[in-house]
Amino acid sequence: MTDIRMIEAAAARLDGHVRKTPLLTSPFLDDLAGRQVFVKAECLQHTGSFKFRGGWSAISALSDQARARGVMAYSSGNHAQGVALAAKRHGVAATILMPADAPALKIANTRFYGAEVITYDRETESREEIGEAIAAERGLTLIRPYDEPLVIAGQGTCGLEIAAQAHAADAGIRDVLVCCGGGGLTAGIALALEARAPDLRVRPVEPDGFDDTARSLQTGTRQRNAKMAGSICDAIVTPEPGEITFPTLRRLCGPGIVVSDDEVLRAMALAYQRLKIVVEPGGAVALAAALFHPDAAEGDAVLAVATGGNCDPAIFARALATLDA
Amino acid sequence: MTDIRMIEAAAARLDGHVRKTPLLTSPFLDDLAGRQVFVKAECLQHTGSFKFRGGWSAISALSDQARARGVMAYSSGNHAQGVALAAKRHGVAATILMPADAPALKIANTRFYGAEVITYDRETESREEIGEAIAAERGLTLIRPYDEPLVIAGQGTCGLEIAAQAHAADAGIRDVLVCCGGGGLTAGIALALEARAPDLRVRPVEPDGFDDTARSLQTGTRQRNAKMAGSICDAIVTPEPGEITFPTLRRLCGPGIVVSDDEVLRAMALAYQRLKIVVEPGGAVALAAALFHPDAAEGDAVLAVATGGNCDPAIFARALATLDA
Repeated sequence: MTDIRMIEAAAARLDGHVRKTPLLTSPFLDDLAGRQVFVKAECLQHTGSFKFRGGWSAISALSDQARARGVMAYSSGNHAQGVALAAKRHGVAATILMPADAPALKIANTRFYGAEVITYDRETESREEIGEAIAAERGLTLIRPYDEPLVIAGQGTCGLEIAAQAHAADAGIRDVLVCCGGGGLTAGIALALEARAPDLRVRPVEPDGFDDTARSLQTGTRQRNAKMAGSICDAIVTPEPGEITFPTLRRLCGPGIVVSDDEVLRAMALAYQRLKIVVEPGGAVALAAALFHPDAAEGDAVLAVATGGNCDPAIFARALATLDA
Repeated sequence: MTDIRMIEAAAARLDGHVRKTPLLTSPFLDDLAGRQVFVKAECLQHTGSFKFRGGWSAISALSDQARARGVMAYSSGNHAQGVALAAKRHGVAATILMPADAPALKIANTRFYGAEVITYDRETESREEIGEAIAAERGLTLIRPYDEPLVIAGQGTCGLEIAAQAHAADAGIRDVLVCCGGGGLTAGIALALEARAPDLRVRPVEPDGFDDTARSLQTGTRQRNAKMAGSICDAIVTPEPGEITFPTLRRLCGPGIVVSDDEVLRAMALAYQRLKIVVEPGGAVALAAALFHPDAAEGDAVLAVATGGNCDPAIFARALATLDA
């Protein structure tokens, strides 16, 4: 499993290739939340989400032989783009399995980053089965989106930055709120903070109705979501917490926080209006928790990770419309 | 007049109080422009624009007696907010003169930052006359938006960052495109680059129909705009280049570049989609020039300053609508 040495090794491989994303603040958000709110703007990362870190970490650790054969990933969005660009910059061929009904722009972006895109039918086919079959047949290294120690190590580099930035801010941050899907970023940040900022505690945040991690942390065993569709936060909807990530979450994280779609849209609008950043719904749940569930957090200040900004313009327009209310 | 020593002194006073804004890139924008495009995301500055730099520079240089009396500024938007927050953080009272028909949100923001807002009638009254009368009556220090050496020095600190970031990128940047109103930022950056990065050249960018600076540079004397209203880029529409700023622009800048409103909206949409930042129309003219007038610039790479992000949601929605075309 991933440990702090793996995360620091990943940080060394990522140095000069990923952005150290800024910590943003606004007195308007502080006023709303009743405490200082720090936003880690990971939407400004290459490819528009933290997933580039994990992709770079996994690919940069491959042997020359494995690089020559290429990599494979399945994803409908951010992981696809993160792996595709990281592969391109390493001169490694990438094959990405995407649902045939994924937004045309996401497929086009992934192709633009140089990947071969293969589509599958989300209704009748299993991406895991197809992905593993193609990877085995072609000798490709499969890069799983979260149940993969090197990917978790890459996401953990975000946690190293948070540890340094939170200490430099010296504002009494206690809780670090992280948008949580399969738990790769959440586990990576928690491991980094355990070693480098044990005064900070990670809290996973999920959308209402897709709170598998919150329920799993409550019961102590992995719980599944009743459904997989119907959330505007599609980027962070997974069937259940990861097999590798959950034990770390259980050991290191505080209770999960659950937010509504309406709170997510309002958080996106406030990020637009007060921070001048574009955040997608799945990337805004942590900020929504910081702003609209202040009682759920502790400390004089709180940090929320804005994990991605790849947002459909129609959804963004819905978020902007909340500003008139 | 402002010189490099004044800019470096301002940088020392600003250190730890302003954000060092990131230089962002996207392979999609490079592909569109035909060369690498670097975007200095000054919209991520406190108060959402570079104006906070000039406000901080001017207020931090005041004597204790002047601080005790307070400061005055006239502005319909970004300069008002920049001065108001800088004053608040210095514990200095700020009085801001704003047009009575300014957007309610801008007036509310300026008040939130602790300033006393006085309104005037844009049609029948002169803000310069009223501002100077109130300042004289109350003993306030007037902070002019661009014809003020300390303000130019503050904006010049953005140029010091550009010099360091452009050299670190080592990508063959030649032209630095700057959104230009009265010329405070343009002059400040040009002075900083003259001393710290003489291989870079500033090019002022303006919207079509409000190209007073481009025409002034062409003729060698200050030219006025035929009109003051009717541009979506209201933040950078001024009657003519500044009296103090223009000689610096004439000495140091390359020819001006003029862009259309449609190009501005498309640049805002691409900044949303590819960089995940919110840029207002007046803050997007330089990026529009980099993307849609590539023949106007020289070098293997170009740098555009995204000067502000305080954008009315209705205008932002118009920009997003260009993505479907």
